[in-house]
Amino acid sequence: MDSSNIKLLIGCPDARGVIAAVSGFVADHDGNIVESDQHTDLEHGEFFMRVEIEHVGFRLDSQSFPKAWESIARRFRMQWRVDWGDRIKRLAILVGKQTHCLQDLLWRWRAGELSAEIPLVISNHDDARVLTESYGVTFEEFPVSKASMEHDQGRIIDRLDGAGIDLVVLARFMQILRHEFVARFPNRIINIHHSFLPAFAGSRPYHQAFDRGVKVIGATSHYVTDQLDEGPIIEQSVVRVSHRDTVRDMIRKGRDLERMVLAEAVRLHLDDKVLATNGKTVVFD
Amino acid sequence: MDSSNIKLLIGCPDARGVIAAVSGFVADHDGNIVESDQHTDLEHGEFFMRVEIEHVGFRLDSQSFPKAWESIARRFRMQWRVDWGDRIKRLAILVGKQTHCLQDLLWRWRAGELSAEIPLVISNHDDARVLTESYGVTFEEFPVSKASMEHDQGRIIDRLDGAGIDLVVLARFMQILRHEFVARFPNRIINIHHSFLPAFAGSRPYHQAFDRGVKVIGATSHYVTDQLDEGPIIEQSVVRVSHRDTVRDMIRKGRDLERMVLAEAVRLHLDDKVLATNGKTVVFD
Amino acid sequence: MDSSNIKLLIGCPDARGVIAAVSGFVADHDGNIVESDQHTDLEHGEFFMRVEIEHVGFRLDSQSFPKAWESIARRFRMQWRVDWGDRIKRLAILVGKQTHCLQDLLWRWRAGELSAEIPLVISNHDDARVLTESYGVTFEEFPVSKASMEHDQGRIIDRLDGAGIDLVVLARFMQILRHEFVARFPNRIINIHHSFLPAFAGSRPYHQAFDRGVKVIGATSHYVTDQLDEGPIIEQSVVRVSHRDTVRDMIRKGRDLERMVLAEAVRLHLDDKVLATNGKTVVFD
Amino acid sequence: MDSSNIKLLIGCPDARGVIAAVSGFVADHDGNIVESDQHTDLEHGEFFMRVEIEHVGFRLDSQSFPKAWESIARRFRMQWRVDWGDRIKRLAILVGKQTHCLQDLLWRWRAGELSAEIPLVISNHDDARVLTESYGVTFEEFPVSKASMEHDQGRIIDRLDGAGIDLVVLARFMQILRHEFVARFPNRIINIHHSFLPAFAGSRPYHQAFDRGVKVIGATSHYVTDQLDEGPIIEQSVVRVSHRDTVRDMIRKGRDLERMVLAEAVRLHLDDKVLATNGKTVVFD
Repeated sequence: MDSSNIKLLIGCPDARGVIAAVSGFVADHDGNIVESDQHTDLEHGEFFMRVEIEHVGFRLDSQSFPKAWESIARRFRMQWRVDWGDRIKRLAILVGKQTHCLQDLLWRWRAGELSAEIPLVISNHDDARVLTESYGVTFEEFPVSKASMEHDQGRIIDRLDGAGIDLVVLARFMQILRHEFVARFPNRIINIHHSFLPAFAGSRPYHQAFDRGVKVIGATSHYVTDQLDEGPIIEQSVVRVSHRDTVRDMIRKGRDLERMVLAEAVRLHLDDKVLATNGKTVVFD
Repeated sequence: MDSSNIKLLIGCPDARGVIAAVSGFVADHDGNIVESDQHTDLEHGEFFMRVEIEHVGFRLDSQSFPKAWESIARRFRMQWRVDWGDRIKRLAILVGKQTHCLQDLLWRWRAGELSAEIPLVISNHDDARVLTESYGVTFEEFPVSKASMEHDQGRIIDRLDGAGIDLVVLARFMQILRHEFVARFPNRIINIHHSFLPAFAGSRPYHQAFDRGVKVIGATSHYVTDQLDEGPIIEQSVVRVSHRDTVRDMIRKGRDLERMVLAEAVRLHLDDKVLATNGKTVVFD
Repeated sequence: MDSSNIKLLIGCPDARGVIAAVSGFVADHDGNIVESDQHTDLEHGEFFMRVEIEHVGFRLDSQSFPKAWESIARRFRMQWRVDWGDRIKRLAILVGKQTHCLQDLLWRWRAGELSAEIPLVISNHDDARVLTESYGVTFEEFPVSKASMEHDQGRIIDRLDGAGIDLVVLARFMQILRHEFVARFPNRIINIHHSFLPAFAGSRPYHQAFDRGVKVIGATSHYVTDQLDEGPIIEQSVVRVSHRDTVRDMIRKGRDLERMVLAEAVRLHLDDKVLATNGKTVVFD
Repeated sequence: MDSSNIKLLIGCPDARGVIAAVSGFVADHDGNIVESDQHTDLEHGEFFMRVEIEHVGFRLDSQSFPKAWESIARRFRMQWRVDWGDRIKRLAILVGKQTHCLQDLLWRWRAGELSAEIPLVISNHDDARVLTESYGVTFEEFPVSKASMEHDQGRIIDRLDGAGIDLVVLARFMQILRHEFVARFPNRIINIHHSFLPAFAGSRPYHQAFDRGVKVIGATSHYVTDQLDEGPIIEQSVVRVSHRDTVRDMIRKGRDLERMVLAEAVRLHLDDKVLATNGKTVVFD
């Protein structure tokens, strides 16, 4: 995948001829489609499409596209967005005391796996400072307390806004975001929960899993909504456990899951491969 | 594994010297231990052990064992049972309209994977008759209705008792067993639930999974208790799904999971490898 | 997926505008594309596409399509085929003494998982007769001996030809097909090999796996070519093993893998989702 | 698991009464067995056992044990070793230009997952210096060239010997060790190979996998022997790939596998859970 390609994402009521209209439009402007995915949600009668177009030859740019595109969009009553690939997304990571997910994201970022800038890591503790700064990334501590939650989270929102952040990643942040926070970044906050949701929502999922005696534990990455642990699921994975595994073993095994599942969700989002709709996701992988 | 070996299962308060006492006892009677597993449940301070002993040379039999064993059992306050491998367990399968699990168990049984006799298949519908009888197994239809549940299930209990059944397998039976039923076969009724419990307990789990938009579906085999879908879990497994999978696709993929997970649980139980304790299982695989 | 849809499969040198040309063509004839997948093989500069079109409204049929389609096909130098969904594929199964794969395919077929007719099961032994006939399928025994291999396989080819067979499935047939056989059904013979190829090609792969001490065993379904176990791979899967697993345990665990992997490959082929090219497959799942 | 427990590992010809003799011996000296595993290799007629004993109460120490143990060892012709848990193992990592496995081991080490000291990281390039030193670990560059291989590897052996290294981990070292090197650390050098061996041994396994068109790629950790990529396998794992995955995608997905598989093998070895025998391993997990 060439991250500098143009990515066009479309949602609309299901109708005949959408694929032909879109691909015809691209061809009419001398564009070359290098990837095209679509999905029809039969339950809701909705159609989704993701088209990746090469820059070379395409006679439209971010200026001229909207006007040219307008009639198709209106005809099919489309919701759409286009990423011109000319601007790297800006990602901020919020982290608590557990730093394994942060560490993993920073490592993958340096290894070139994540096409993003990471201008900022924010925490309510100081634990992650040295790690973050060793990657040349700015670390800022924002205390959060129950008494002043509204004010504290407001400060973080302002800071993220000021830094032009596109995607907020909660890498084991362990704080519940207030409605104002979630509303400011709709489908642009990704959380990792350390269970296979909907099982073991809420706190201490590994303890819950141990108490129930499950033979499989999991991790889930999802967009954050106002309902705790109920946002659209992007990615999940599991690993086997047995009666020999203590809670501590589950935490150790789970760390690997959390790292992989969160990284995969972030990668998919950065590549504009995730569409959230009706409480679920369409993932064009 | 030689299914004719003697299998000794032990549970007792955790204490020093249990392993030595048990293995010394076997050696003192010229027995040869071919497999020995143990587990300490640190949370509850309990110790579990499974020992497999060859018949050849062992100077005790089902008659003389209890008296010889008595002092060790009392000293460590053991709960124990021994399977002399001289009697094949008798398994009955209860099935509803879906026959894939029944079909799979019968097939494995004939292939020699399950060391059991299957004298009886019971259903509240007639659908599975031809299949069952093609394996030379007796099929009996027992109507179950809400109005006469107590009487209907009572008849089934009597039939199972009369047939000397050791293990009851609910192969998608789709009926909730009454307390009397469960109490008659404690930790000897295995159910297959078509989700990764505790997620999606209750009815229509694939529909629930579809609605939630999970990326993984599962199946769970467990001993039946009075709490619906809350008995000790024996085995679980999962398979990936995506937004492209309809409920029908999930049902298709899930069937394979259900077959494998149920068969594995039955196999483990028949080999005396499962100990239920404190709402969980110890599985000596 | 609606198996009665029109399925159009295309391969051509990579070029601009193929997607637009194809989807425009469908739209120009009032067709509705319900699914569209494509893949560009950058290594060989080739483009592949699979389009699923609804019958309703489409103004072309098997008669008129080739002429209408001709200019596009020529322009992009396409190899193409179209399945009008008006004829159920005819599948023959060749089986040896091990019947678990046959059993599984017949069961899935009856459960509606495979959109095919199965007019014929052929074996060089009589073992599978009762099983096959219990599903109402014709069973024929064709002895195969080393001395008269050419003649023996020739008879089978003639029988398959006579029965109008589209797809030949080797469900543990355990005979090497001669060149004439393979040439008669190019990319239309699917085999199951009981290892994760290319490891443990040839005979007795579970014994090879046991001797090497691997921690994972696998199964591979592939199209048959003249090179033994080297045809294009359609599907693979694995399961964990440990030092405790004997060859017999591996055979037991492997049977489950073989059944699942073979069934998945057959299902994908029957839905026209597999394209073989350059010794590999493109699988549009 | 308490890493300070005494770990006793035994191998001997299969015989009656070994378990009883060993556990009786421990009990006679007031020891408490907290874990006991055994395995009988029926093919070679060999018996293996791992016993974990608490220090508290045990009336033997490293001084007095050998004499007390002598008669049992002789009677059963045992090969045995005992780890008193009083000395943390010393681990050296050899690394090439790819640092993801090194990074992962260092991270897990700091997170407390590996019970070892890491006094030394050695490389034939300078790439890993900053990373290594950020963990407070000594980094040393040892140039290796084809012309002076004997001398170059000899210097590394001397350095490892001088540092009292117990376990050498090849974290993508990409150099073939000479016989002298391997002989100095028998079953104490762990390598990670980026394929599911025995498939794709040798160089560039991801390219080989891409060319063959497999649907699953893997990673293998094994003890190093004189036969390249043929040492006893400790751990393997796999991940699915499709025709959409380029070699670059496989490398990315494979990095995660390599990290997990190598770390697991190292963890198992450090906990004295791996016994190498007859070209395979017994892994007491």
